[in-house]
Amino acid sequence: MNNLEEKILDSKVVFKGNLLTVYCDKVELPNGKEAGREFIRHPGAVAVVPITQEGNIVLVRQYRYPVGKAILEVPAGKLDKGEHPEDCARRELEEETGYVAHTIKRLSSIYTTPGFTDEVIHLYIAEHLTLAKQRPDEDEFLDVEVYTKDQIRLMINDGTINDAKSMLALLLAGI
Amino acid sequence: MNNLEEKILDSKVVFKGNLLTVYCDKVELPNGKEAGREFIRHPGAVAVVPITQEGNIVLVRQYRYPVGKAILEVPAGKLDKGEHPEDCARRELEEETGYVAHTIKRLSSIYTTPGFTDEVIHLYIAEHLTLAKQRPDEDEFLDVEVYTKDQIRLMINDGTINDAKSMLALLLAGI
Repeated sequence: MNNLEEKILDSKVVFKGNLLTVYCDKVELPNGKEAGREFIRHPGAVAVVPITQEGNIVLVRQYRYPVGKAILEVPAGKLDKGEHPEDCARRELEEETGYVAHTIKRLSSIYTTPGFTDEVIHLYIAEHLTLAKQRPDEDEFLDVEVYTKDQIRLMINDGTINDAKSMLALLLAGI
Repeated sequence: MNNLEEKILDSKVVFKGNLLTVYCDKVELPNGKEAGREFIRHPGAVAVVPITQEGNIVLVRQYRYPVGKAILEVPAGKLDKGEHPEDCARRELEEETGYVAHTIKRLSSIYTTPGFTDEVIHLYIAEHLTLAKQRPDEDEFLDVEVYTKDQIRLMINDGTINDAKSMLALLLAGI
């Protein structure tokens, strides 16, 4: 195996917003040359595949401003500071859909786009659900929609579900 | 279905680098209130599952500065301006691995992280490969590694392969 490592020479925050912190670092390449690296630091997130007692799947439809449309996703959200991913998965599931999970199991943890962010999403499957009350964050607008596994498979195949974390979570959950 | 749409009120570029352009927009929410939206515009990318004549899979190991380590991925890269995704898939495959694909087929197109970028990755499967010469971009360092399908499945299950687009492309390719 070659030496692939890049050594940090300098690090600079070029934008700090409410959601995104953008860095512009200088690195030394394996060949000794210098290069720039622009990237985003992210607190990490979770995504959950909720399976109802009837064996159906609970999705949320949410407007995603960067892509300019409302898309179908599994319930998901960012980790609060110091929050365990499993607690976050339970919290986001309940806030977004109103479902409480009595069994929750980790599927995997994934890098969403390691070329420009350190974001990790922890994927879970949630079963034995009971319905409490949906309580989304203030100013969070979403529709809760329940589909059969057959419908989910069709929507993955025809591109109706096109959010990477959702597709991956659903496939890893064996849907 | 509720009205989920957010209307743009103002758009501002807050950082423009070589790779990333960061926007900070102001939107009107469905309830009439205003909110900020920070996001990245991205030119789009491709990722390719290359399957050799022997039925093995060609991966690349590459240092990803944002996550601080070298990780295993399917060959991938950004679209050049005006480039067709299929041409980009062939180009990136050849540049990164030296393999030329005589059959290439689209699997899907995915949003990597619609919460903060418009990035779309077009996923392909490449078959009937012949080996030419690897010619990575100047200052691009990567190892080419070939695995059996069984090894790939194990590495997805145990988290050795943890890059979302790669996992998804491999699963959609039926690996």
